[in-house]
This record gives sequence, C-alpha cells and structure tokens, in this order.
Amino acid sequence: MTPPTGLRPGLPGSAYGESRIEVTYRLGISAREAPALAQAIAYEQTVELPPDLVVDPLVNERVVGRVESIVQVDENVHDACISFSAELANNHLMSLLNLIYGNASIYPGVRLQALSLPDSWLRDFQGPRYGVDGVRELVNVRHRPLLATAIKPRGAMSDYATSMVYQFALGGGDIVKDDQNLIDDFDTFRWRVAACTDAVDRANDETGGSCLYFPHLSAPHHELSRYLEYAYQVGVKGILVCPLLLGLETTRGVLADYPLAVMAHPAMSGSYLVNADQGIEHGVMLGTLFRLAGADISIFPNAGGRFSFSSAACESIAHKLVEPLGTLAPSLPCPAGGMGFDDLESMVGTYGNQSVLLIGGALLGHSEHVAHSTQDFVARLDVLADRSASEVTNSERNEGVHATVPTLHRIAFNEGFEWTGRDSSPYKDGEYTSRAGTAFKGVRRVELVGKFGERTACDLRYFEVAPGGFTSHEFHVHTHIVIGARGEGLLTLDDDERAIRLNDVAYIAPLQPHQLRNAGDEPFGFYCIVDHDRDRPVRIETGAPDEGTKHEH
Amino acid sequence: MTPPTGLRPGLPGSAYGESRIEVTYRLGISAREAPALAQAIAYEQTVELPPDLVVDPLVNERVVGRVESIVQVDENVHDACISFSAELANNHLMSLLNLIYGNASIYPGVRLQALSLPDSWLRDFQGPRYGVDGVRELVNVRHRPLLATAIKPRGAMSDYATSMVYQFALGGGDIVKDDQNLIDDFDTFRWRVAACTDAVDRANDETGGSCLYFPHLSAPHHELSRYLEYAYQVGVKGILVCPLLLGLETTRGVLADYPLAVMAHPAMSGSYLVNADQGIEHGVMLGTLFRLAGADISIFPNAGGRFSFSSAACESIAHKLVEPLGTLAPSLPCPAGGMGFDDLESMVGTYGNQSVLLIGGALLGHSEHVAHSTQDFVARLDVLADRSASEVTNSERNEGVHATVPTLHRIAFNEGFEWTGRDSSPYKDGEYTSRAGTAFKGVRRVELVGKFGERTACDLRYFEVAPGGFTSHEFHVHTHIVIGARGEGLLTLDDDERAIRLNDVAYIAPLQPHQLRNAGDEPFGFYCIVDHDRDRPVRIETGAPDEGTKHEH
Repeated sequence: MTPPTGLRPGLPGSAYGESRIEVTYRLGISAREAPALAQAIAYEQTVELPPDLVVDPLVNERVVGRVESIVQVDENVHDACISFSAELANNHLMSLLNLIYGNASIYPGVRLQALSLPDSWLRDFQGPRYGVDGVRELVNVRHRPLLATAIKPRGAMSDYATSMVYQFALGGGDIVKDDQNLIDDFDTFRWRVAACTDAVDRANDETGGSCLYFPHLSAPHHELSRYLEYAYQVGVKGILVCPLLLGLETTRGVLADYPLAVMAHPAMSGSYLVNADQGIEHGVMLGTLFRLAGADISIFPNAGGRFSFSSAACESIAHKLVEPLGTLAPSLPCPAGGMGFDDLESMVGTYGNQSVLLIGGALLGHSEHVAHSTQDFVARLDVLADRSASEVTNSERNEGVHATVPTLHRIAFNEGFEWTGRDSSPYKDGEYTSRAGTAFKGVRRVELVGKFGERTACDLRYFEVAPGGFTSHEFHVHTHIVIGARGEGLLTLDDDERAIRLNDVAYIAPLQPHQLRNAGDEPFGFYCIVDHDRDRPVRIETGAPDEGTKHEH
Repeated sequence: MTPPTGLRPGLPGSAYGESRIEVTYRLGISAREAPALAQAIAYEQTVELPPDLVVDPLVNERVVGRVESIVQVDENVHDACISFSAELANNHLMSLLNLIYGNASIYPGVRLQALSLPDSWLRDFQGPRYGVDGVRELVNVRHRPLLATAIKPRGAMSDYATSMVYQFALGGGDIVKDDQNLIDDFDTFRWRVAACTDAVDRANDETGGSCLYFPHLSAPHHELSRYLEYAYQVGVKGILVCPLLLGLETTRGVLADYPLAVMAHPAMSGSYLVNADQGIEHGVMLGTLFRLAGADISIFPNAGGRFSFSSAACESIAHKLVEPLGTLAPSLPCPAGGMGFDDLESMVGTYGNQSVLLIGGALLGHSEHVAHSTQDFVARLDVLADRSASEVTNSERNEGVHATVPTLHRIAFNEGFEWTGRDSSPYKDGEYTSRAGTAFKGVRRVELVGKFGERTACDLRYFEVAPGGFTSHEFHVHTHIVIGARGEGLLTLDDDERAIRLNDVAYIAPLQPHQLRNAGDEPFGFYCIVDHDRDRPVRIETGAPDEGTKHEH
C-alpha cells in the first residue's frame, strides 16, 4: 500500500509553502524556567514526545514547533512566540485549535496571547459573508451604529414576544435576535420564526425600514440543517449562533452554505477568557477565531456591564474584528450585557459607527412602550453618530450573497432520452493518458437535478451506455441508487453480476466495487441517484484516486 | 398564527414532568454576597433579565432557576445549588450546556462544581454504546486493565508507523489510537486507516488476539461523515475524537449512527478544568458530559504526569464515568500523559481493572523493541491485575451493537409494477377522522431503498395513483425529485400545474406546496426520491403538522 502523496503521510510539504502560524503564549513563569516551558509546548502541540525521542531530522525540521523568541513582560511573566508549519493546521478549525491550544489548554499558567495566521492558509476560509458593509446594506443604515435587541424571556406569552418584535421594528430598531436561551423543538421554532418574521415584515411595511429578525440556531445534531433550511426558506436574513456550543468548525461548516448574516454569541467561551493567566486572549477568541467561523457580528459583554470584561479586553475584540486577516471581511463588534440609555455615549465613543449596540432589559422593560423607547434610542444614536468616521469597506466581498433559487422545476422528457433544458454529453470513450487502459467507453450523461442550484441531498442523473460500452469499474464511500430506464445492462457488484432491465432497482453500498456494462444491441439507459456532496471514486485497476470528474457515478 | 403546542411556546410544561436539573455552583464570594450572586445566576441562565422585569408568574415559576441551598465550604467559598426545569435543557447537549454554564462561564469566581440530571431527561440519551463491558468484549480481555498506545509523531515515515502498530498488536497491546495531532486530508486518512487496520489484522492473525486500531476523527465539517463512513466500512471498531473541538452535541450526533467504540480526548478542555475557582469540575466535564456525548473511554492526564491534574481530580473523573446516570452504560477511565512502566502499579491501584492505561513515549522509545516492550507491559498488568475486583456490568446495553448490512442489493421489477422482496401497500383512501376532508385518495406505495438498513442520503419509493386519486396537498422543508414511470398525472407546484408523463422529471423545493393527481383513466406511477432524514409534512388545508405517517412524500 503506497502513501497517497508526497514524501510521507502527514509530513508538512508544500501546501502552504514555508508559511508558518505564529502563536504567542504568555507564560506565568520565571526567566530561568521560560525556555524549557516554551520548548515543552513546541513539542506538546506537535509530536507529543520528549525531544530525545524525536530522532528523525525531517520531523524535527518540519513538524516540531519552533521557539522564535521569549520576551519578558513582567517579573514572572514571559511571552514565548512559537511558530508552526501552517500545514499542521490543515484546512479547518478543529485542526487549527488543536494545534495552537489543544493540549496546551491543560497547562496552568499558559495563555494564548496572540495569533498570526499566514495569508496562504487563510485562503481556505470564507470568513464573514457579509462583514461590516454587508450587514449595513441588509439593514439599510449607514450613518450610525446599529441598534439591536433580544427576544426574551423564554416562556413569555406568544403575543408578548411578537408584539415586542413588532414594536422594536416600528420604532426603527435594526436587528432583533432571539435570546440564546430560546431553544425549542422544531414545531415551536417554526412557529416562532414565522411569527417574528411576520411581525418585522408588518412593521417594515409601515415604516419603509429594514429591521431584521435573527433566530437562534440550536438543535439536536440531526435536526440542525432542518432548522436552518426552514429559517432560510421563510426569508430570514441572519441567524444567532453560539460557536463554542456548536463547535467552531461545525459553525463554519453548517453556515457556509447559507447566505445568512451570522451573529455570534459568547456562551461557554468565558472559561477561556476570564482567567488572566490561562486560556485565550479575548480578541483572539471573540475576534479572530469567531471571524474564521464566519461571524459577521460578535457579541461580547461590554466593560462596565454586569460581566467582568475590562476596557482593554473589549478594545482588543473590536480591533481583532476589523484588523487585516487575509482577504476576510471585517466584522461588527456588538457590546452587550446590561447596557442602557446612558451607556450609549460611551459605547459610541469606544466602538464608533461600525458597531451593533445590543440593548436588552433597558429597552424591553415597559412592554407597552417598546416602540417609543426604541425611537428614543435610535434618535440618540443619530445624535451621537460620528459622521466623520471613515467607513471600513468590504464591498468586493458582497457579490453573490443571495442564493439563486432555480425556477425551472419540471424537466420534460423528449424523444431519444433527452430532456428540455438539460444538455446531454455525447457518447465518450474515456481514456486517462497517464494510465494504461480504458476507464470507460460509450457512455453519455444527462445531469437532471442537483447541478442547477437546487437544494437537495441527492443528485439525479441519466446515463446511457452504448452497445459494447461500460462505465468505470470503481468504488467510493458514497452510495448509489440505480433504476433501469431503457434496454438491458449488466451490473457488477463485488463479484456478482446481475441484469438491469426497465424499472429494476439496485443499491450500491459504500466501498462496494461496481460497474455497468451493455452486452446487448440496444442502448442501455439508467437513472443514477447519488449524494450531492460526495467523495471521488477510486478506480479498481489502480487503486489510486480518480482525478477525472468527467464520469463519476 | 397559532403556537403549536401547550400553553405558550417554550414554556416548560410536561415533557419531563416536574423533573429538575440541579447544578451546584461554587462561588468564590463571602457569605453576605453569596445569595445575591446565586440569584443572579438563576436569572442569568434562564431569562437574562433583572428580577423586577420578570412580572409574569408563570415565567417566574417555571422558567427562572430556583436557588435551593447555599452551603459554606470555606471562609469566602460557598456552594449554591440551583435547580432548573429539565425541559429548559431541551433534549440535546447544546441546550444543556447553555442552561448550566453558557453565560455563567463569563462570571469569574463561579465554578460548576456538581451536576445532577433526572432520569426522565436522561432517557433521550444513548450515552456510551459499548461501555466498560462492551469495550472489554471487543478486545477480548477481561481480567486486567487494558493497555493502549498512540501512533506518533505526525510526519514519521509510513513504515515506522505501521510497523509500530504491528508490533504493539503483536506484543499483546489492546488499543492503538492515532495521536490527536494526526489530522489529515481524506486521501492520507484513507491510506493510514487502511494501513493500520491491515497491520493490526496481520498481528491478530498471528497471535489470535483482538487488538484494535482507533483512527482520529478530525476533518472539515462537510467531510466528517465521509471519514467516518470510510473507517466504518473498512472494519474499524472504534474512533478517537476530541469532543471540545467538535462540539459535544456534534460529537454525540455524528457518532450516534455508527456502532463504533468512542475514545474521547480532552484537547481544548483544559481552560474549563485547571482554574480552581472557575470553569467546570473535572469529573463533570470529562466524566458526565463526555459520557453524555457517547464516550466509552475518557482520556485524561494522570496525576503526577506532565500535566497538573490532582489525584482528587482524577478520582472524580473515574467516579463520574461509572456512577449511576440514568440507564447510561459506565465508561472506562484512561489515565495518560507521560506515564511509564513504573507508574503501572499506582495506576492499577487507583483505577483498578476497569481502566485503559495509555502509554506513549515509554513504549515507543525504541522502535525496534516495541513488541517486546508491549509484552513486558502486558505481563506486568497481568501480575498487577486485581482479580477479586467486582466487574461493572452493562451487558443489557450491548445488544444490536453491530449494524446489519443489507445483502439484497438488486430489486427486480415484476409485472404490474411490483418488485421482488418489496411489499406494496394496497390502494388507500386516506382520511383523518379528526379533520374534515380527504387527505389523499387511491394511492399505493412501494418502499424500494432506504427502509431496509441501507446507508443512504435519500430514499427511493414508487407511488401509484389510481384514476381519480390524488396525494396529500402539502409542503415540508425537505425536497423531492419525481420521475414519471407509468401513465400520466398532474403535478401542482405552488399555483402551477404540469403534466408528468413517463421519464418527465420534477424537482420540488423546500416549503413548496405540491400535490400529484391522476385525471386520466390509467394508473399514474412515479418514483419519488426523498431525504432519508426528513421533517413531517404540513398539510395545506389546515397548516398544522401532519400526524399521519402513512403517506409522507
């Protein structure tokens, strides 16, 4: 069995060139002990072996972290900068977190203080889909900070909640989000999302405004995509999510397919943040890492509120949300946590126009006056707005924000097994020049559903094999369903061979070698149903991944 | 728009009766201040409003947390027990974590010290699939602690890694897992899993043993299921996962469908654990919560190793892994972190026979002698094993551990649109007695693929509508693909109506109202492709969820 690529499996090679990730760890330790601890972290995070057991020069050179510098910060506080090959973080956030803080999180007195990510590695990340400009465009407000509030409490009478949403929108508020405690079964979620969407729509119709409602995405794993799809389908433009509860990579992945603005909540992040000599620096966690997970807006407890964040911590978050980070768009800081009318001035002073100010209890205290309170807050923000402030722009990132929904839903069948609006590839005798032998022969394909913007778990294709032709003999993790549509063919499954005639159905299991052949005189046609997201087939002859995408079935 | 169930959306009702979750928070605060802080947490975790804004008696009674007791632990340390309606934790782990520690994680000086979960709530959780007995059965070792090691370092020569795996198995080791730093692209993962599986298989053939290889599951979100499916398909029996990187609920959900033993790694958990006055108690996190996420084996750094866990912390983890927790199976503690030969005695003394001892560098130091070192370790464990220790049993939970793989892959079509081995439901005139009107009429259905144990993203069914018949007029979040198979029918999509004849294809988008009718004289047959996991249809006439499952399409 040959390793697939490069010199050795897992050895950093050239995916990101010589790019390195630099992590600064703040060590609560004396000058004498700091070098040994820095060295221990460099090994712990990469090879998890004592230095004397790492005898291989290539592992030492490319895998083990490199202590770049140790700088004294205070008598028993030192900042150690350790660099890692960017390839060790792979191309996702589980791997990044594991590399920069996985085991180090168990060291007392070691805080991840700063993080520098190379542009080549960042290219794999979309980051905030809307960013500062995109969110402003959605709410159609450009000259002042945005005003947000939260629907609460859980268990309130339903007309209380919807009336509050309606009044907030009527008063000119910009974003009303679910409280992160609003977590429901699907039927209740569906009701709430429909009712709140309806409430903001009614108010927007009256005011001409663009207030948005962001539901909270929290559900059992298997139901997440259903919740999300439902919200998207009824026209929701943004979503509230708790990345530390869902997992940062899961957050990024789940939301990547949806053109929704993402408001990130810091639930469960506190233990990384509030212990000065341990954990992860506020701005790295709620700024950089949340941005990588796709946050357009990052909520955090403002200094002076009912939580304990310092002004410096809040400023660091705000800074990390907009500082250059590859080509990622900047995000909006969203200070929160017991803020009221009298806090507006200092909040605008600190965060400027490019911010979302989240006001909860102070706005909702008198449910019959929410519209008026909101008007007061918005008017105050109009006065406080810094009109001279330069706008952070990310307009080049706001293309293709809205999903295209297919309009052609019926695909008419025509003579000769052709379909209206669907091209048929001509018969092909496939050959891979780099390898001996013919991969497939006399196959034509019609993509019917799945390549045209449909939201679907499976794609539908029609294949036709000419007399004497055959498809590639291959296997893959994804599965197939085959339905005979025309003529007669032979299906090889493992070592078994069966005829496939009109309306015969076959199921091809994960990793099951298979091939379809036409031993007759007439064309053999079949439908093939296949996972929308799928792995590349492996051809049986070589065992190597099939680079061709012309004929994957 | 009417809320779906109960008195009010989200108000705890009767899902778990009067059951309450009890959380003990350790507060680093004086006796005078403790009651106010406990009260603040009770509100923070549920309604996030000041008490004077919660005027609704039902919200106060059912939603707000209840301070049950405050007990002095030390001069400025108090344990406050707060109970919450179990329904506020819904039926998943994102919701539980948010309830018990979401915002509280941002309070300095507040540690989640103990957690008590009612049996009624625990019923929704499978927990460890194998548990102590199941893992022992897999490795076929009952009389001594199990011996585990890790494949490392990343980037080693491929024959180094596979030879090490082979030798460890040859020497009688029980579980060899990937290091959590081994994170790869799919091709490399596939190579490694195949090579390591092959290595343990060869050794097991020689020794007659049952050594297992556990690969590490870490991948971009969209590829996770592919990695997992591949490992499962090549016969892997267990997997290594980092629940804090993947997310606890994602971990539970992703692994729930696979009959794999789960070894959980504590990466990124440290910041919750190592700060004595903040975070989550060791046993609650790595014991109770990891068990809820499905861990059969929980790895943690042993006291006295290169990390800082105290003996008390380790004993708490071991205790929480086996203490009664609803009907959940007990799990195996797996002390690790720089342990060597001389540590075996104290480890066995502390953890007893029901444990997995993870030895890394001390076993792998001399790569040419791994088989002999392993033999020495196993022989030592044989001597140290406590043969009188009572066995924790969970045999009643180990049924149905192995997935049944379908053997019938080709479903032959017969005259009259029937298929071999597939029952056809008779034509039905469906009616819901509780509602006016006929839901559907003259429809028969044949389930072809998806209900017979296949691993598939989509199911395939054949429907036939008799002359004058029609399917239910409905919508749902999941999508359909329809292929005409017999006769002619009419598809209503939104307000549009189109004919469906043989081989016409139609795509039905999320939430798109649809119905199929037969206005002709011959039977109208069509294939319907539908998501394997799907939401209940909503009938157009009533807008209420359709309780019937007889005809969902």
